[in-house]
Amino acid sequence: MSQGVMRLRAKICAAASAVGKKETEGPLGSFFDLRDPTDRYGQKTWEASESEMQRQALALALKRAGLTSKEVGLLFAGDLLNQCVASAYGLLEYNIPYCGIYGACSTSAEGILLASIAVTGKSTEWAAVVTSSHYCAAERQYRTPLEYGAQRSPTAQWTVTGAGSFVVGAETRDGVRVTRGVVGIPRDSGVRDTANMGAAMAGAAADTLLRFFRETGETPEAYDRIVSGDLGYEGGALLCDLMRAEGIDIRRQYEDCGQLIYDRKTQDVHAGGSGCGCAAVTLAGYLLPRLRKRTDKRILFLPTGAMMSPDSVKQGRTIPAVAHLAELEG
Amino acid sequence: MSQGVMRLRAKICAAASAVGKKETEGPLGSFFDLRDPTDRYGQKTWEASESEMQRQALALALKRAGLTSKEVGLLFAGDLLNQCVASAYGLLEYNIPYCGIYGACSTSAEGILLASIAVTGKSTEWAAVVTSSHYCAAERQYRTPLEYGAQRSPTAQWTVTGAGSFVVGAETRDGVRVTRGVVGIPRDSGVRDTANMGAAMAGAAADTLLRFFRETGETPEAYDRIVSGDLGYEGGALLCDLMRAEGIDIRRQYEDCGQLIYDRKTQDVHAGGSGCGCAAVTLAGYLLPRLRKRTDKRILFLPTGAMMSPDSVKQGRTIPAVAHLAELEG
Repeated sequence: MSQGVMRLRAKICAAASAVGKKETEGPLGSFFDLRDPTDRYGQKTWEASESEMQRQALALALKRAGLTSKEVGLLFAGDLLNQCVASAYGLLEYNIPYCGIYGACSTSAEGILLASIAVTGKSTEWAAVVTSSHYCAAERQYRTPLEYGAQRSPTAQWTVTGAGSFVVGAETRDGVRVTRGVVGIPRDSGVRDTANMGAAMAGAAADTLLRFFRETGETPEAYDRIVSGDLGYEGGALLCDLMRAEGIDIRRQYEDCGQLIYDRKTQDVHAGGSGCGCAAVTLAGYLLPRLRKRTDKRILFLPTGAMMSPDSVKQGRTIPAVAHLAELEG
Repeated sequence: MSQGVMRLRAKICAAASAVGKKETEGPLGSFFDLRDPTDRYGQKTWEASESEMQRQALALALKRAGLTSKEVGLLFAGDLLNQCVASAYGLLEYNIPYCGIYGACSTSAEGILLASIAVTGKSTEWAAVVTSSHYCAAERQYRTPLEYGAQRSPTAQWTVTGAGSFVVGAETRDGVRVTRGVVGIPRDSGVRDTANMGAAMAGAAADTLLRFFRETGETPEAYDRIVSGDLGYEGGALLCDLMRAEGIDIRRQYEDCGQLIYDRKTQDVHAGGSGCGCAAVTLAGYLLPRLRKRTDKRILFLPTGAMMSPDSVKQGRTIPAVAHLAELEG
């Protein structure tokens, strides 16, 4: 099928995560590699702090893979800041051929799929992926500066302060296999409420998941987990409903990085976590190690992204969304 | 070499361009496919006009390739607007698996290289690329709203209103071959002046071109043209100087899309054209048809991008840049 499931022959050979205070205090806190309770990573601006998280996460992932930056042929990176500057500045010192990508909160999966495509086709031996978000940088760009103390709506999500990095190599290497992938088709569910991204993105997630199940004939039972990127509590419930309406019940396998990363009862995050960093650090810190140890054997990783800008919403546009899927095997 | 020249086996099988008034009045005006003297393409906002140019350019490129959108497995698209919304909204109706990319004004080459990588590795049979910029949308986002009538500096460039689209298929198809590629390594030349992007980007262009010549042993004489994306008059002169300092004289083959697209004497564009659309429409409308007819046999296409944001510059950061190279044969 021309728009179908891609067969990939690649492995995620190393990964690393860097997070801030709230993520450290959450249920996954102990799984993350680098943690800074000031959220600043030694920098003066939130934007520079986000860049620095990317820099440190890539340094650690390369070290774990036993690679120097010169051995990496392609670097896929992106973030939520205008013109993706967290990535551009954060990764400058590495001198790796650079492809900027933008998939909003689906960026980690877009990067892993593109890296796997390049490695599968032998265009490069090693590719790296980095993505990030920072709560304070995102708030002032998308909503209001923190100093305003604006009240948040119950369906709003909390942007994760974190960066995740992945090193992708050939399937003959040691690591977690990327076996199949689906690049998402953007879907517009007609949602205009930027405080309810879960609702805007659930339709795209369902679409990608249905394309995968229908073409492959797989069922949810074949997977230890089906993990969306950051639909949160609102969008996660919607995704399960949308799938059930299509005759597929994913509730037993279903999890969401935005639900996993914070404790809803004690951390006041409303509908859960979000941001490019959310799925990236949850995969790097929590999901990949389980696959490596074969605690989990096979999962579907399904990050979602909302593709609007503050300006497009002010101009009355609805919020298009996309969801990319990677099948991962330990 | 792990970071070296990539061998590609792909062809650009069809292309299309859409432009505005100033581009229609320029020296290449008659080569462009779609032209709207109002710059609006029937839309109410400049941002929506940019999206509509993308939509129409892709429709025409698909028609020329004899493809329906369902036959295209991957779509690479990006633009200069925050969160790349020109692409997200413009291409929504196509229902093609979507990879958002961000390479500032180098986006057309990034897309063509990624599409060629995917086709070379047989991850998809057909891939499409779309990119755009719009003078009025870019001015109000990066500089000041047009109504301010701000004075422009002599080194400033004029953002092209235009969208270019490309359909990439296997090398067995009919079209212009993409034979080799170099993904650029971001370079920071220490420039802080956003009214002199040419100076910020020339170093990155020289770096990519030198990597190509040194690894392949090719010389400028092997090419009919070496065409940078939008260095303009300032950056173009700097690139030639930087190359000469390395012992390579490219002045006989050298051209720049930002110099080609406007008439400097009559069109008041100062240092030339720029924007994602600049290299894209010049390639689609002018360079590719020459290669198809074999008026040119072999060219190097070298778009450059400045990776800063208005905020990063306000925070005192310098302007990193990247340049991607595609070797094209008729």
